[in-house]
Amino acid sequence: MAPIRPEIPATMRALEIRAYDGRPESLAIVTRPVPAPGPGQILVRIRAAPINPSDLMFLRGLYGFRKELPAIPGFEGSGTVVAAGKGMMARALLGRGVACAAADASIAWGTWAEYLVTSAKFAVPLARSVNLEQAAMLLVNPITAWALMEIARSEGHRAVIQTAAASALGRMIVRLGRRFSLPVINVVRRREQADELAALGAGHTLISTDDHFDRELRLAARRLDATLGFEAVAGDLTRRVLDALPTQARVLVYGALSLEPCQVNPASLIFEGKRVEGFWLSTWLAGKSLPARYRLSRQVQSLLTDDLQTQVQARLPLESGAEAVERYSHNMSAGKVLLVPGLGVGSRAATANH
Amino acid sequence: MAPIRPEIPATMRALEIRAYDGRPESLAIVTRPVPAPGPGQILVRIRAAPINPSDLMFLRGLYGFRKELPAIPGFEGSGTVVAAGKGMMARALLGRGVACAAADASIAWGTWAEYLVTSAKFAVPLARSVNLEQAAMLLVNPITAWALMEIARSEGHRAVIQTAAASALGRMIVRLGRRFSLPVINVVRRREQADELAALGAGHTLISTDDHFDRELRLAARRLDATLGFEAVAGDLTRRVLDALPTQARVLVYGALSLEPCQVNPASLIFEGKRVEGFWLSTWLAGKSLPARYRLSRQVQSLLTDDLQTQVQARLPLESGAEAVERYSHNMSAGKVLLVPGLGVGSRAATANH
Repeated sequence: MAPIRPEIPATMRALEIRAYDGRPESLAIVTRPVPAPGPGQILVRIRAAPINPSDLMFLRGLYGFRKELPAIPGFEGSGTVVAAGKGMMARALLGRGVACAAADASIAWGTWAEYLVTSAKFAVPLARSVNLEQAAMLLVNPITAWALMEIARSEGHRAVIQTAAASALGRMIVRLGRRFSLPVINVVRRREQADELAALGAGHTLISTDDHFDRELRLAARRLDATLGFEAVAGDLTRRVLDALPTQARVLVYGALSLEPCQVNPASLIFEGKRVEGFWLSTWLAGKSLPARYRLSRQVQSLLTDDLQTQVQARLPLESGAEAVERYSHNMSAGKVLLVPGLGVGSRAATANH
Repeated sequence: MAPIRPEIPATMRALEIRAYDGRPESLAIVTRPVPAPGPGQILVRIRAAPINPSDLMFLRGLYGFRKELPAIPGFEGSGTVVAAGKGMMARALLGRGVACAAADASIAWGTWAEYLVTSAKFAVPLARSVNLEQAAMLLVNPITAWALMEIARSEGHRAVIQTAAASALGRMIVRLGRRFSLPVINVVRRREQADELAALGAGHTLISTDDHFDRELRLAARRLDATLGFEAVAGDLTRRVLDALPTQARVLVYGALSLEPCQVNPASLIFEGKRVEGFWLSTWLAGKSLPARYRLSRQVQSLLTDDLQTQVQARLPLESGAEAVERYSHNMSAGKVLLVPGLGVGSRAATANH
């Protein structure tokens, strides 16, 4: 079905937060004027937008930046570019399906809305073969998973440990590990999660609540020669991963699902030369040239229904925003919760597959 | 007074630990055969040996290595080389005053004894002008202070933050900061410690128990452009220092006086590109060439009664080992407690000045 240039209405429905306290009452559905794209910007009619752990951090004011309140949340999504401001990059995207991001303090809008104005820089044009709903989850998890594995490979690590291995991103790392023949030692909290990963073909999964977890993690790290950790939980798990790794190893913290400070054993730092650093997609991407970003976007798109696919547990309309956030917060490993504008309200974006 | 070649007795008095539990009962005075130096080794008649925080960690089994039990503790000291094994390096030291170390898993003996066998590599021959008692504290603190400041200077930092600034090592960093015109922001726990540092000429001292400490530390770091932290306390103070520093900054943990895990804010790592690493003198020295070590030892000796002087709060005989450890543990900022073999027992080492 060929894309049809839709009419742009004067107003749109959007979710808006009034306080950075993470309370459901602070998230409301509102009607706002559809913003107009400025120079270098595009207007995207949103097809779908996921809730990610980074959004949950943003709602609580714990993310890397805050936007002025009231603000429309939502860091990533997908849709069709229906208007463009001045500038070649922006105009080249007109009419195209894109994965788009608002994960930057300079972008006033968010993807949890019917329309988004963002910089053309933060949009990736999609190949025709790419499923628009899956593309809503292209920028954050698949690119982060790819980036982490690229770090591991370029630095010559022979194996890695990852925590939160049953998360959407964790599963991508499991699959990329198989693709690149880079062993991944997976850490999960529950037996069922270990079983799910085994079904994906994960070879080494340990359960952090097991009695001999620390010993087994250390043995697995030694056997497979793991020298890098991807840590997304924080709290005491950071310490346990760092302790299990050999001297000179490094842990990259890229998330804090526990919302606790990382614990680190000083002896690991002092006597064993281990290091703790962070990973942020924005920083990593900022270090890439435009051609490198283009190649990256092609590689990631080509794996989007394969290694980098994301499981979806529910699709909800914007009107159910607070419910959607609750649902995702309470069961992240069941898959993403997608906000789909107009779903169950009109016929607009909900059923068209573009 | 010219050194007189002393007779070497068959046995010696030494302190010995029987368990890595840090209990006073686990530290006993014993009589042991005086060990004979093997190839490349020297026998040092110990003049004095300090108790350092690293010794306290060793007694609790928290140091970077353990020696086989029972073991003689004591990582550093000074004395006269009274016998040498085969090898040019060892023989060249015969009769000389040295600062010596046993801070290596390969050295079976310790400095809390009348005699120490150690590798000639771990001894620094002393200039005649150097006070033998001060030289007992030459290797750990002065060289660590020098090393930390060398890291700060070689990396081009414009200012640093240090915690435990009232410690022996902290005071050296205060003085070296003045020497090198590198501003040091000092963190102490109590008002009296701040006053003591002010008397040393410290310009910027903050008290971690003050109400507005975090805000003031952040402001001071910004004003002076501090981008590096020297952290010796661990626990929540690691987080507070890292949070106060600007993006991309680094904290070097070189001690853990609180004996708690370091806390680290994951947002500092992820969004601000901050890093946490450790510093260990052994690792740092291992990366230095022999000529570099020689220059270092000369530089540090020349400052030993100046910027790198150590305050001594008490001199006790080996027989009072447990008391000495207790006394130092409970009031580290009053100065070092020195173990002086034979003090108050015979006349041997106690009063002779080399």
